[in-house]
Amino acid sequence: MTTVAILTGGGDCPGLNAVIRAVVRTGAKHGFDAVGIRDGWHGLVAGNVEPLTDYSVTGILPKGGTILGTSRTNPFKNEADVQRLRDNIRKFGIDAIVAIGGEDTLGVANKLSKMGIPVVGVPKTIDNDVGATDYTFGFDTAVAIVTEAIDRLHTTAESHHRVMVVEVMGRHAGWIATVAGIAGGADEILIPEIPFDLDVVTHHLRLRYERGKKFSIVVVAEGAQPKGMAEAIAQSARTDEFGHVTLGGVGNYLRDELEKRLDMEVRVTVLGHIQRGGSPTAHDRVLATRFGVAAADLIKEKDFGKMVALRGNDIVAVPIEEAVANLKTVDMDLYKIASIFYGG
Amino acid sequence: MTTVAILTGGGDCPGLNAVIRAVVRTGAKHGFDAVGIRDGWHGLVAGNVEPLTDYSVTGILPKGGTILGTSRTNPFKNEADVQRLRDNIRKFGIDAIVAIGGEDTLGVANKLSKMGIPVVGVPKTIDNDVGATDYTFGFDTAVAIVTEAIDRLHTTAESHHRVMVVEVMGRHAGWIATVAGIAGGADEILIPEIPFDLDVVTHHLRLRYERGKKFSIVVVAEGAQPKGMAEAIAQSARTDEFGHVTLGGVGNYLRDELEKRLDMEVRVTVLGHIQRGGSPTAHDRVLATRFGVAAADLIKEKDFGKMVALRGNDIVAVPIEEAVANLKTVDMDLYKIASIFYGG
Amino acid sequence: MTTVAILTGGGDCPGLNAVIRAVVRTGAKHGFDAVGIRDGWHGLVAGNVEPLTDYSVTGILPKGGTILGTSRTNPFKNEADVQRLRDNIRKFGIDAIVAIGGEDTLGVANKLSKMGIPVVGVPKTIDNDVGATDYTFGFDTAVAIVTEAIDRLHTTAESHHRVMVVEVMGRHAGWIATVAGIAGGADEILIPEIPFDLDVVTHHLRLRYERGKKFSIVVVAEGAQPKGMAEAIAQSARTDEFGHVTLGGVGNYLRDELEKRLDMEVRVTVLGHIQRGGSPTAHDRVLATRFGVAAADLIKEKDFGKMVALRGNDIVAVPIEEAVANLKTVDMDLYKIASIFYGG
Amino acid sequence: MTTVAILTGGGDCPGLNAVIRAVVRTGAKHGFDAVGIRDGWHGLVAGNVEPLTDYSVTGILPKGGTILGTSRTNPFKNEADVQRLRDNIRKFGIDAIVAIGGEDTLGVANKLSKMGIPVVGVPKTIDNDVGATDYTFGFDTAVAIVTEAIDRLHTTAESHHRVMVVEVMGRHAGWIATVAGIAGGADEILIPEIPFDLDVVTHHLRLRYERGKKFSIVVVAEGAQPKGMAEAIAQSARTDEFGHVTLGGVGNYLRDELEKRLDMEVRVTVLGHIQRGGSPTAHDRVLATRFGVAAADLIKEKDFGKMVALRGNDIVAVPIEEAVANLKTVDMDLYKIASIFYGG
Repeated sequence: MTTVAILTGGGDCPGLNAVIRAVVRTGAKHGFDAVGIRDGWHGLVAGNVEPLTDYSVTGILPKGGTILGTSRTNPFKNEADVQRLRDNIRKFGIDAIVAIGGEDTLGVANKLSKMGIPVVGVPKTIDNDVGATDYTFGFDTAVAIVTEAIDRLHTTAESHHRVMVVEVMGRHAGWIATVAGIAGGADEILIPEIPFDLDVVTHHLRLRYERGKKFSIVVVAEGAQPKGMAEAIAQSARTDEFGHVTLGGVGNYLRDELEKRLDMEVRVTVLGHIQRGGSPTAHDRVLATRFGVAAADLIKEKDFGKMVALRGNDIVAVPIEEAVANLKTVDMDLYKIASIFYGG
Repeated sequence: MTTVAILTGGGDCPGLNAVIRAVVRTGAKHGFDAVGIRDGWHGLVAGNVEPLTDYSVTGILPKGGTILGTSRTNPFKNEADVQRLRDNIRKFGIDAIVAIGGEDTLGVANKLSKMGIPVVGVPKTIDNDVGATDYTFGFDTAVAIVTEAIDRLHTTAESHHRVMVVEVMGRHAGWIATVAGIAGGADEILIPEIPFDLDVVTHHLRLRYERGKKFSIVVVAEGAQPKGMAEAIAQSARTDEFGHVTLGGVGNYLRDELEKRLDMEVRVTVLGHIQRGGSPTAHDRVLATRFGVAAADLIKEKDFGKMVALRGNDIVAVPIEEAVANLKTVDMDLYKIASIFYGG
Repeated sequence: MTTVAILTGGGDCPGLNAVIRAVVRTGAKHGFDAVGIRDGWHGLVAGNVEPLTDYSVTGILPKGGTILGTSRTNPFKNEADVQRLRDNIRKFGIDAIVAIGGEDTLGVANKLSKMGIPVVGVPKTIDNDVGATDYTFGFDTAVAIVTEAIDRLHTTAESHHRVMVVEVMGRHAGWIATVAGIAGGADEILIPEIPFDLDVVTHHLRLRYERGKKFSIVVVAEGAQPKGMAEAIAQSARTDEFGHVTLGGVGNYLRDELEKRLDMEVRVTVLGHIQRGGSPTAHDRVLATRFGVAAADLIKEKDFGKMVALRGNDIVAVPIEEAVANLKTVDMDLYKIASIFYGG
Repeated sequence: MTTVAILTGGGDCPGLNAVIRAVVRTGAKHGFDAVGIRDGWHGLVAGNVEPLTDYSVTGILPKGGTILGTSRTNPFKNEADVQRLRDNIRKFGIDAIVAIGGEDTLGVANKLSKMGIPVVGVPKTIDNDVGATDYTFGFDTAVAIVTEAIDRLHTTAESHHRVMVVEVMGRHAGWIATVAGIAGGADEILIPEIPFDLDVVTHHLRLRYERGKKFSIVVVAEGAQPKGMAEAIAQSARTDEFGHVTLGGVGNYLRDELEKRLDMEVRVTVLGHIQRGGSPTAHDRVLATRFGVAAADLIKEKDFGKMVALRGNDIVAVPIEEAVANLKTVDMDLYKIASIFYGG
């Protein structure tokens, strides 16, 4: 009997439970037993491992978060931890590990794989910035939440003739800002990939005002920065454990600067943690399920050291190493679509 | 022919359009013509008045915000403005005014009424703190939005074993915090009516942790304050034009203080403007429609100087003066219900 | 130690879990133990009883349905079943029963109470037609679901210049049709309380068409009937175990008749079971929680044979008998509000 | 100045307004004037054409349906109509037509193109069954609505230990059933592509029951048929103008047959028109916007007779002819994923 251990690492993300369920259920068809590792790599170091049956995963498909818990523990920071981890793999009779996580979690998976431990990776990033896959689950849910928020802000912006700035997730890549911004009809979208020019932004908003549209929506990724003024933001910023700017960040900077330049009220909303919570969209549940099925299939084929990925409409397997190597920034053809609607 | 003028003042609120529609449509049955005043009292001073037909209000029932625009203009700050306002009432042949707004807007309505201008008031406060009515439209929608946010934060709190602090609207009264907190299963609810004790809050959260519930949700109204430490918050706070704390407020204060006291990660989310945006709930559409119908009926009966209000399940008319006088704070029997669930 | 048994009977309803949670948690404060009876009265006959701890009710507040299961078993249909039920009350050491249900479930509770068994009732009816309480939980959620459906149908009706008929729950009372109809801006609302006249309905829809509004929404409660033609519907109808018309019912009848009378496409949507599913609204979670708290308090006070109820904004206790006696039909003042918007 | 005429034909679909907006706004950048043709090809025959400005399309991005109206008129059924259509193209100075529609609407576009009229096509099918494009807008929204309905039905199915049958759109292809079924955790998915065997379905549901899962969800596309028994359904069926089964269809057939075979309650819900109504998802808004931008770009490049299409993540242009030729049935690799979860 093959025993498959599953863990989730890094920030939580809608769809994690759908992956876990799909690995367990597909594994059962392949004749695997499943165990769950609590709280990411930490649980494998600590020996916090429990059986996962069909009943453990009943009803979890629509649930946000992860029933396994998560952490950011990196066992390679401590030699003894790596040994404990190896001991626990033996102790619990683990034949293969499915590691669901982002850059950090998969980085550990990659090292373990090179040490000969049978690992399969499933990419997780709500920001959609993992290089080796076209899309990751959780992203569509985050986009849906942000778009709904923009819809809400539209009515209040219009009633008060205001500029509303919405700060969304995206430290290194502006995928959420771009896609939700287009979906929400944003009048300006600012992303980390392209330092912004306040004069250009101001010009667009003024154009709209002069055409009688006395309100505007500006969507800004938390990692966006003004040209040559990255320091200005950095000073007022605080960052959380993801390096995400949480207070005094670019949203507040924009509010202050736009109010100076425009004779309009400007308000800022920092969406924060609600972007990663709650039930996944249908799209994300299906993608996560497909990833989980494919991960179990890789184990059946003993095709280790690979990560599942979406290419076009197909699920493929790529070396974990490849996945960790590249940041995927926003498609500029997509980003340009947003600008068609600026100033109008 | 009676000409009824309608205006919306103060912060926008889901349900304003439902009131406007109901006044116009009920007025048409009574044989009234309707005109819309743009941007609150400002539009009556500036002569910004337009016809409102059945077609103007078609399709607006489910829309957030106000098709008439809004402002915080107080014409009584300027003698000349009051004269302009009176001139415009004559110029546009206005026989009665329906003023939809909160304390400030209705305060102006009250003064005009005393000057002999035929005015009818409709109470509007998303915070539910107007004294003369049991409930106001917009409140149920805000509660629904906050509850959905708490649901989302639950999944992420649980996955990461975190305390999540959610700062919601409510400067003078904690209605949104209390009702959404109970609906969302909050583990602590802090409101302006009762200065909070950090030691007690910490005790509740520790109790939960020790019982194996390694995450908690704290809902705090923006106007809540710690015992004897109101200054601490005031220093780091910024307020918007409603006096709402927007940055560095009580949510961030709590995050910092709880992290010091607990050996847990604490995160804060400030919900902000999304609480007042978007399509009203069915409940608010019905209440707003009932208010609009009742306002038009008051005009038919030439019963001026009154405001419509909800008492139990009935719509009644009360003197506008009464409405403006009293702040309605949270029902303590309701608030106590929340505490049954603390620490468990 | 007092042992409190909880059961849910009849059709499921959003908010049942919130009641169960509130009884268990409030009971714990009062020093009670809690047990759950599976599948309504059936479980008490069959001895299907299990402990309910704080952990059993963790996370259930936002969940639809009932964790205890439900059935329509009436033990009084069988003498032996009543004896088994009494034996099981003794066997499991049950000191008090909280029965959450509608007319049938509370009817059994009433009989048991008269036999000296300590029972407390919590009213449950998604149709809002229980006489002794102003509102019941589940109703607001059903109204929200129906209103959202009407919003969706508006866009398709308008695009295709169609009449859309929406059949909703409400066999004996038209509460859902009335409240959701007003909230959704229905152009005609038909309820069981008032037999409808097809000529009047047709007249209203034609008026709209002639005014350039080339689409209409008709909301009809499943129990509504045309004047003097109840037989026509009955012939084509099928009913489910609630007596709810599910196929060939009044919606289809209206579709056929309106198409004959109008030169327009008419489509029908029968909303069915989705009206009682899913997460309760914030409003229903709070009402259900208040009911559960009050039920536990009644037990503490040994005030048996009573049912909790909402009167205005207060929770009160009324004899169960009273609750079962009266059907609460739609408030005609509310219903008349809808007609203000007909034909316009 | 180039004048671009836009029309929408066939059944309405969330995202049509997003396409219209994108064509108008992108066209403005290219220096085009835009006019709207009312109610599909009918409006071009009748000369029902109106200017479309930037202001006409303000605020329509999140709105369902189509501001232009729609119809199923085929001008080629009548020689004189084709002549009127050509006359109107000249009369209104139309230089190019953007036809947004399905098989029928694009079929007309194809014929007009062959007659030398400059036409560009945008594919629209909520069923996702147009051959030349990977996905069409509206499909993701329909899937989201169906998934939400399945989530709701889960709670009621579980509480009552029932089998719930959900009949969804999909006459020729089972895309909605497959994707929403996987997302909703359906225990059986039946589609037109594969005639179903009632014994197999019954076997799966019994397996679940025996494993203690006393409820099941069956999702069935309206066009699904039992092996060798297509007639049975046909007899009891009624079809609407799309050929969609609306009453007595496969859902009811399944309910009856499964109740005979299983000792369980079976209930059916026919979702109907709500599947195509309401605000498009973020995903559909973006896809529709990309289609609209690409259509305007094709006109700029005078690349007529083409239809925009999604291939992988790219928008491409394909001959309209190709699009109309092929029905795209469900990807069998995707469909098989669903079966992993059957019986468990």
